[in-house]
Amino acid sequence: MKKFRAAIVGYGNIGKYVLDALQAAPDFEVAGVVRRNANDVPDELKSYDVVDCITKLKDVDVAVLATPTRSVEAFAKQILAMGINTVDSYDIHGGIVDLRRELAAVGKANNSVAIISAGWDPGSDSVVRALLEAMVPKGITYTNFGPGMSMGHTVAVKAIDGVEAALSMTIPTGTGVHRRMVYIEVKPGFDFNTVAANIKKDEYFVHDDTHVMQVESVENLLDMGHGVNLSRKGVSGKTQNQLIDFSMRINNPALTAQVLVSVARASFKQQPGAYTMIELPMIDMLPGDREDLIRRLV
Amino acid sequence: MKKFRAAIVGYGNIGKYVLDALQAAPDFEVAGVVRRNANDVPDELKSYDVVDCITKLKDVDVAVLATPTRSVEAFAKQILAMGINTVDSYDIHGGIVDLRRELAAVGKANNSVAIISAGWDPGSDSVVRALLEAMVPKGITYTNFGPGMSMGHTVAVKAIDGVEAALSMTIPTGTGVHRRMVYIEVKPGFDFNTVAANIKKDEYFVHDDTHVMQVESVENLLDMGHGVNLSRKGVSGKTQNQLIDFSMRINNPALTAQVLVSVARASFKQQPGAYTMIELPMIDMLPGDREDLIRRLV
Repeated sequence: MKKFRAAIVGYGNIGKYVLDALQAAPDFEVAGVVRRNANDVPDELKSYDVVDCITKLKDVDVAVLATPTRSVEAFAKQILAMGINTVDSYDIHGGIVDLRRELAAVGKANNSVAIISAGWDPGSDSVVRALLEAMVPKGITYTNFGPGMSMGHTVAVKAIDGVEAALSMTIPTGTGVHRRMVYIEVKPGFDFNTVAANIKKDEYFVHDDTHVMQVESVENLLDMGHGVNLSRKGVSGKTQNQLIDFSMRINNPALTAQVLVSVARASFKQQPGAYTMIELPMIDMLPGDREDLIRRLV
Repeated sequence: MKKFRAAIVGYGNIGKYVLDALQAAPDFEVAGVVRRNANDVPDELKSYDVVDCITKLKDVDVAVLATPTRSVEAFAKQILAMGINTVDSYDIHGGIVDLRRELAAVGKANNSVAIISAGWDPGSDSVVRALLEAMVPKGITYTNFGPGMSMGHTVAVKAIDGVEAALSMTIPTGTGVHRRMVYIEVKPGFDFNTVAANIKKDEYFVHDDTHVMQVESVENLLDMGHGVNLSRKGVSGKTQNQLIDFSMRINNPALTAQVLVSVARASFKQQPGAYTMIELPMIDMLPGDREDLIRRLV
């Protein structure tokens, strides 16, 4: 069986787990890794091509974009224009519809497919939210994140004067409301209480119940575990009180990387264009014979 | 906006809830009801055409089959051959692949679409099982049913000599293992202990932990609530201990009926043929503008 050849674009935290997921997949092989500094080749990449531009890799079928979200659009457009599929975990909820339009145009013009915003939220959580609405059309879905590290909030804390190191944990308190537990190391010469007050005033934190704590070492607190609980209570037809609940406790980058590889597989089953995960049949993400999958899973 | 015209075929427990779900849907209207005795017209059907054959209804776009599972194939073939889409909740897991093949042939030949095995299990649970495998490819998914009434097991109990009335409840004990709690009224002249022993020896019960209890009134125990818990623990890429859990507590026929109506909507987005729910994009089951749905749910 010919395997799909996947390039990993960006080799940070997610990229490393994408390598794991590609190596573990029965139907993929690694076409190479694209990173800014192609001379930075850690041990686990020694047997692969590491390049600074995807044009230097051979026979790439799909590019897994493990870059920062802000770089996704530019990379995707360049790669889709080469006729290569792309998958990304673009996570700015307000920008998804525009990104989909932009990439759909490039994909249709170049016979390639983009699957966008494919991680766990947006991503697999989006699929669950859509399924829950099909089952229970009236009602409220709450998405409760955590406990786990929020990348965005942690970056926001680090930008505040006097913060040496930071970790912002998201703690779910139910009904989609979250507490922010912020752990910081304070730079010499700064007053903790002043720094803490500035964090609480920041746009990222001002609307939430935020607790700031000073610690000796943020490094010692870091853990990539995360979780989510999606709950919906509502009405099927005219029948009230239908209760559905989806929960997980997972390694965050490992799940994001796995979803990226699963949608990379699905990309080969779609018509040229751009898609979010709620536009994909679940079966397209799985390896193996279609009837065997139906027999086993339906 | 032109509404989809749906016929309800079969008007038992599920059919009544299908009527609710169609009435509650913004984009459907009831084209009529097909039942064996077209003269049996309860109050809630007075404003609709009630007929004994679907050919007597006008402009049907989709037929919602709320018949016993064993009748699904014959009804679906007849109706698909008329160029009308069908949806069903066929629930004999071992027969799904064959039914899909049979109906796909008729659908393709007559430009119609069948969505099969669309209830909650098979159905929405199947979607969750497929999604979980895409997120966590290695590991075990347990499907734990209940607490709730098992239709199949209840029918099996009623077939045993000396049983006047029966209810078989499915109780989950974890890791996909179930206890059977059987409540019976005993016919005069029969010995409870003998009847109970015969139930436990029946093929439906012999492999499970089965408890049989004699009650004054089975009727007083009946409740259409049901539940399920799907749990998966496994590996994303090479990362162990990824934990995912899906649970619901629902009115059983109301959910089945709602899923049928949601997939009826999706049927109009598919190419001619036959599909299970894991072959449908979730977005196709929801009413409304595609970009609005993406903006809201992804």
